[in-house]
Amino acid sequence: MLALVLGDTPRVVSDHPEPVCREGEARVQMHVAGVCDTDLQLALGYMGYRGVLGHEAVGRVIECGDSDWVGRRVVADINAGCGQCGDCLQRDGHHCATRTVLGIVARDGVFAEQFVVPTRNLVAVPDEVSDDCAVFSEPLAAALHVLDDIPVSAHVGVLGDGKLGLLIALALHGAGRKVTAIGHHAQKLAIAAGGGVATCLEDELRDDRFDAVVEATGSATGLAVALQRVQPRGTVVLKTTVAKPEPVDLAPVVIHELRIVGSRCGAMASAIEHLSRGRVDPTPLIAARYKLADAERAMAAASARGTLKILVDAH
Amino acid sequence: MLALVLGDTPRVVSDHPEPVCREGEARVQMHVAGVCDTDLQLALGYMGYRGVLGHEAVGRVIECGDSDWVGRRVVADINAGCGQCGDCLQRDGHHCATRTVLGIVARDGVFAEQFVVPTRNLVAVPDEVSDDCAVFSEPLAAALHVLDDIPVSAHVGVLGDGKLGLLIALALHGAGRKVTAIGHHAQKLAIAAGGGVATCLEDELRDDRFDAVVEATGSATGLAVALQRVQPRGTVVLKTTVAKPEPVDLAPVVIHELRIVGSRCGAMASAIEHLSRGRVDPTPLIAARYKLADAERAMAAASARGTLKILVDAH
Repeated sequence: MLALVLGDTPRVVSDHPEPVCREGEARVQMHVAGVCDTDLQLALGYMGYRGVLGHEAVGRVIECGDSDWVGRRVVADINAGCGQCGDCLQRDGHHCATRTVLGIVARDGVFAEQFVVPTRNLVAVPDEVSDDCAVFSEPLAAALHVLDDIPVSAHVGVLGDGKLGLLIALALHGAGRKVTAIGHHAQKLAIAAGGGVATCLEDELRDDRFDAVVEATGSATGLAVALQRVQPRGTVVLKTTVAKPEPVDLAPVVIHELRIVGSRCGAMASAIEHLSRGRVDPTPLIAARYKLADAERAMAAASARGTLKILVDAH
Repeated sequence: MLALVLGDTPRVVSDHPEPVCREGEARVQMHVAGVCDTDLQLALGYMGYRGVLGHEAVGRVIECGDSDWVGRRVVADINAGCGQCGDCLQRDGHHCATRTVLGIVARDGVFAEQFVVPTRNLVAVPDEVSDDCAVFSEPLAAALHVLDDIPVSAHVGVLGDGKLGLLIALALHGAGRKVTAIGHHAQKLAIAAGGGVATCLEDELRDDRFDAVVEATGSATGLAVALQRVQPRGTVVLKTTVAKPEPVDLAPVVIHELRIVGSRCGAMASAIEHLSRGRVDPTPLIAARYKLADAERAMAAASARGTLKILVDAH
């Protein structure tokens, strides 16, 4: 089958073997996939991953031990835990020490005609949610996961007007929170504004301090800005991972008793519910789409600075 | 009166004017004071402070508009808030934007025969708590404040076997928490062990990871160690402020969804209660004591690497 495989570099191949569906797993025919910045970092050597890239997708189940799933349109949690440890049994397995992660850790990803995930990871996509919306489920779940770390009444500043920052701003707004999206590009902030979100150019912030700030700039210097923009005893939610650590003055964290909270994956079911209820429309974030056969071009397009979401269609 | 006054350098003077006790304030005759690393940093220019140094003390009220306080032995919260803002009215004023801070921000400190604090900051010291115990109230309150940020069931690793790290380990143990004190000096860890705390040399830690880690090393590299020693979804409580920011790889914060929480001052009443109930005995931390007239030598002694608590007696 067609697949974008990461060896030393990511290459589209036409003869990648179809994945084998083991007990407890489901084989999914990919419809649409999305390129994430993590895919770009993996291509540069992050995590030392080798295999089929991609972890954002919607598709249809074509094989599953539980026949109820066959034929259903689905998205899937990307973390495949052992199912036995405390984290898997008591929580969501997102921190299972031996987990594989779709297209990221020891499990072939979704930039392929087919992919395999544990059946328990599947979330059905209702008819009212289009493929182009559902393909945002994974980053939308991650965006909504921010809600777990901030008080309901908090005025939240979202730093960063890239695809993740905008999606977080739209998601929190859709969840009824008071949000201001902050960035450097009026044109991108307009997408958040189009979804009803208050926006502000970073240069035009005055003494504004927020109860919570989400750091989604993708920049090594974003944390320092976030720490300046949060109230005493406030929370900075860290979404950005950067390859090269920068010196950060953490004295304000102690003096102002700030909390810095790392936030990664969320619950796919919450994302699908938000999409189903129309609380957020991520489709204005789509910048371009490519066919799977052109996935190398899709990666190149996504790598261009400032590009919003690049989609990959199976056909 | 005698006082240790910070100008360009800290100098003992014998003719410092006695402090004026305004409405809502109390004038306290100092008995014993303690030297904190913050005093050493202030002497090096931190915060740009000028005035009488020192913020850890126990003494006796000699003047107060509320006559009930006169003659009572007291300690005092070091943060003097405006009394009007939300933080002062709803919380403890520790984050009041216009607060003064005893011996740190715009308010003469305790390395003097007398000092003045707001009456509402006073906490009475019961007879069973000696001056040598009560003088630890401020750092002990800060140590107990860590309890506000960690789950009751957490196994807590305390990084750092300096006076703050040891006091935190003793305080958390005294509060019934499961604690391991971690450091580089067997002799210092023995003080924690003497109080019943489990201890471990940092070099002898294997794969141990704690539910929470308190970073109290005073070192710029302590945070990186703390981040390696905490479980996924765990908490690092940051007590150390360092003058020179170091590069820190914060990717684990996102990947493992860690929380970094800054923690500063605590409730003096809690500290006095713990001392009164005998839950913690800080006196083994006393390294040496000097008379107020020798306070410059006290500062020099405290500056020597690895020194535990230096006390300053009024006479």
